[in-house]
Amino acid sequence: MISKKMDGLVNNNSVIRQMFEEGKRMAEEFGSENVYDFSLGNPNVPAPAKVKETIERLLKEEDPVALHGYMANAGFPDVRAKVADSLNKRFGTAFTADNIMMTVGAAGGLNCALKALINPGDEVLSFAPYFVEYRNYVANYDGVLKEVAPDTETFQPDLKAFEEAVTSKTRALIINNPNNPSGVIYTEETIRAIADILNRKQAEYGSEIFIISDEPYRELVYTGAEVPYITKYYDNTIVGYSFSKTLSLPGERIGYLVIPSEAADHERLFQAVTIANRVLGFVNAPSLMQKVVAECLEEKADIGFYAKNRDVLYDALKDYGFSCIRPEGAFYMFIKSPVADEKEFVTEAKKEHILLVPGSSFACAGFVRLSYCVSYETCVNSLPGFKRLAEKYGL
Amino acid sequence: MISKKMDGLVNNNSVIRQMFEEGKRMAEEFGSENVYDFSLGNPNVPAPAKVKETIERLLKEEDPVALHGYMANAGFPDVRAKVADSLNKRFGTAFTADNIMMTVGAAGGLNCALKALINPGDEVLSFAPYFVEYRNYVANYDGVLKEVAPDTETFQPDLKAFEEAVTSKTRALIINNPNNPSGVIYTEETIRAIADILNRKQAEYGSEIFIISDEPYRELVYTGAEVPYITKYYDNTIVGYSFSKTLSLPGERIGYLVIPSEAADHERLFQAVTIANRVLGFVNAPSLMQKVVAECLEEKADIGFYAKNRDVLYDALKDYGFSCIRPEGAFYMFIKSPVADEKEFVTEAKKEHILLVPGSSFACAGFVRLSYCVSYETCVNSLPGFKRLAEKYGL
Repeated sequence: MISKKMDGLVNNNSVIRQMFEEGKRMAEEFGSENVYDFSLGNPNVPAPAKVKETIERLLKEEDPVALHGYMANAGFPDVRAKVADSLNKRFGTAFTADNIMMTVGAAGGLNCALKALINPGDEVLSFAPYFVEYRNYVANYDGVLKEVAPDTETFQPDLKAFEEAVTSKTRALIINNPNNPSGVIYTEETIRAIADILNRKQAEYGSEIFIISDEPYRELVYTGAEVPYITKYYDNTIVGYSFSKTLSLPGERIGYLVIPSEAADHERLFQAVTIANRVLGFVNAPSLMQKVVAECLEEKADIGFYAKNRDVLYDALKDYGFSCIRPEGAFYMFIKSPVADEKEFVTEAKKEHILLVPGSSFACAGFVRLSYCVSYETCVNSLPGFKRLAEKYGL
Repeated sequence: MISKKMDGLVNNNSVIRQMFEEGKRMAEEFGSENVYDFSLGNPNVPAPAKVKETIERLLKEEDPVALHGYMANAGFPDVRAKVADSLNKRFGTAFTADNIMMTVGAAGGLNCALKALINPGDEVLSFAPYFVEYRNYVANYDGVLKEVAPDTETFQPDLKAFEEAVTSKTRALIINNPNNPSGVIYTEETIRAIADILNRKQAEYGSEIFIISDEPYRELVYTGAEVPYITKYYDNTIVGYSFSKTLSLPGERIGYLVIPSEAADHERLFQAVTIANRVLGFVNAPSLMQKVVAECLEEKADIGFYAKNRDVLYDALKDYGFSCIRPEGAFYMFIKSPVADEKEFVTEAKKEHILLVPGSSFACAGFVRLSYCVSYETCVNSLPGFKRLAEKYGL
């Protein structure tokens, strides 16, 4: 009865989301303190105090008609200018309000970007492991997501495989830096190499190939490592950002797109994403939250909270014999499954009330994703379960 | 450079939105008190006081992690239950939380519904005049919007023309009640007749044909007239609602879909709209606003404010010789253009600093839409300009 496209999606509903709902069901059955739900990137750190203060102040000082009203589809001009200024200060860029569109989260922004770029049959590349929704976003516009197989030693992109995957049909590459689910940061060297390859391929095919950089985890970096700002390395870029993780506002759906002036046909492209925002039904990013984030651009989530979780989990899991890359950013660990079929491991872990997501959901079977944006207690209390799992699998 | 679909949209950008941006430009040039911007449905009535009070209370009382966090894609279960209860109390329906999905405004909801229903080539009917974005929403899923020509005497649907327009390819009918731009309310008799026709056509073609009822103006009714609740008259219905107009929150993007249990394959359809919400990039309706509207379901915009505007404008315009149906609901007047090409009239009106939208944007040339959700002063101060226009056209 439902449309053919949705038929497939209903039959293969998001494992991550199912796990999230299962986690809530288990929390009701067993008590939330006895369920270790590492399934979803739903931050457990409260939003910075300034978020609450700013909402309260705006409600007092601003005209409610303007505060809750329509604005241009691209967002409030003053908010867009403040975002541009903040980026310029931090990354030495030269953006203005004309380069920024406020969006309904990064997911909304990515959909606007793809709607603006993709014709049916166009190919979009992504490096496995990648956030599984990219495939659905690309399919919304009848594009085809082609994955570049992972280098499971380093989880840095396999550049040789990437170069071979670019064809005359390639329209875009989606990257996610820092990476969900691996926690890896793509280095400046990697970014330069990707830009080189794409510049050569654009010349070869006479095409415009975009890098769409999905960056909700940009500020979540543990090592002091730099996350290169992509627009400085390649002209045809679109950056998607979300405040979900940095300000712990995932439910509020607030983010932005950056369309640099160096991108091909910049003005028309910006018009296209703005109109896409309207016709896809977003219309505009939520108005109050636009004004809130504009005042909180210097705020950061408490990275120490996540670092503590990472350290206790990483050290214990390594100690128990699990194999895993030490995350440099984001709040995910990508653990090698002790059995080839990682879904079996996920099922076993669930018996310990530990909820993990199979790597096949990220085009990378044989691994599982652990999302550690949970309370420290959840991390610590899950350890005996992990220990029993390690023993069960003879690690 | 941009995608072919967006190419067409950029070339024919929304006249309404262009007018809105033009209005802001003119307000800067001439002073906002000297520009009579009737272009956009952006309410000038502040949100009810309870909206502000509720936000302040939620910030004080609720855990910020829950208040701003992810929930199931369909929305907070308690919010959905409260919406269902409120509808049941007001309309004698029997909905539960399982019939309600919270959405990013009505526009987001309609897109989820269409994504769930439409296969490429499917036909979606709508009665002209209709909100022009419907055509874009349907095209997002490669459906084709077919309009049923208007009865410009009454602006009630032409049922004979409608019956002839339904084919084996018809997948849905989008109605908007009260109607934007005509201000007309479709009567219970009309709704029954539409349901009869569709039931016969479903039997004839062995198909499921949905009525998608877009109802942001449901509470904005002047005459005490009832707006029939569509699910009581026809099984295959989806109702889209927005709090934009009732609570004056258009920028916040908050609404809901109702999928009644009587709809064909209800459970799977509900799953489909929920997953559409996720994969289209909405993910969920903004979380804080979900909690806010759940506490404000009995609140209403000050209808007296709009009634006063309607009366002063309608009486004066009739007096000057303009021809127009007296609006029963919403906050629009649909005025017959004094010249055949209503775009010429719109241009002339702009010289008087009066901003109107051409009826061709609603598939109904020869008329203009006036949106009177503005201040009373704007209405009154625009009258000399309308008078001069009437004289110019010899009305």
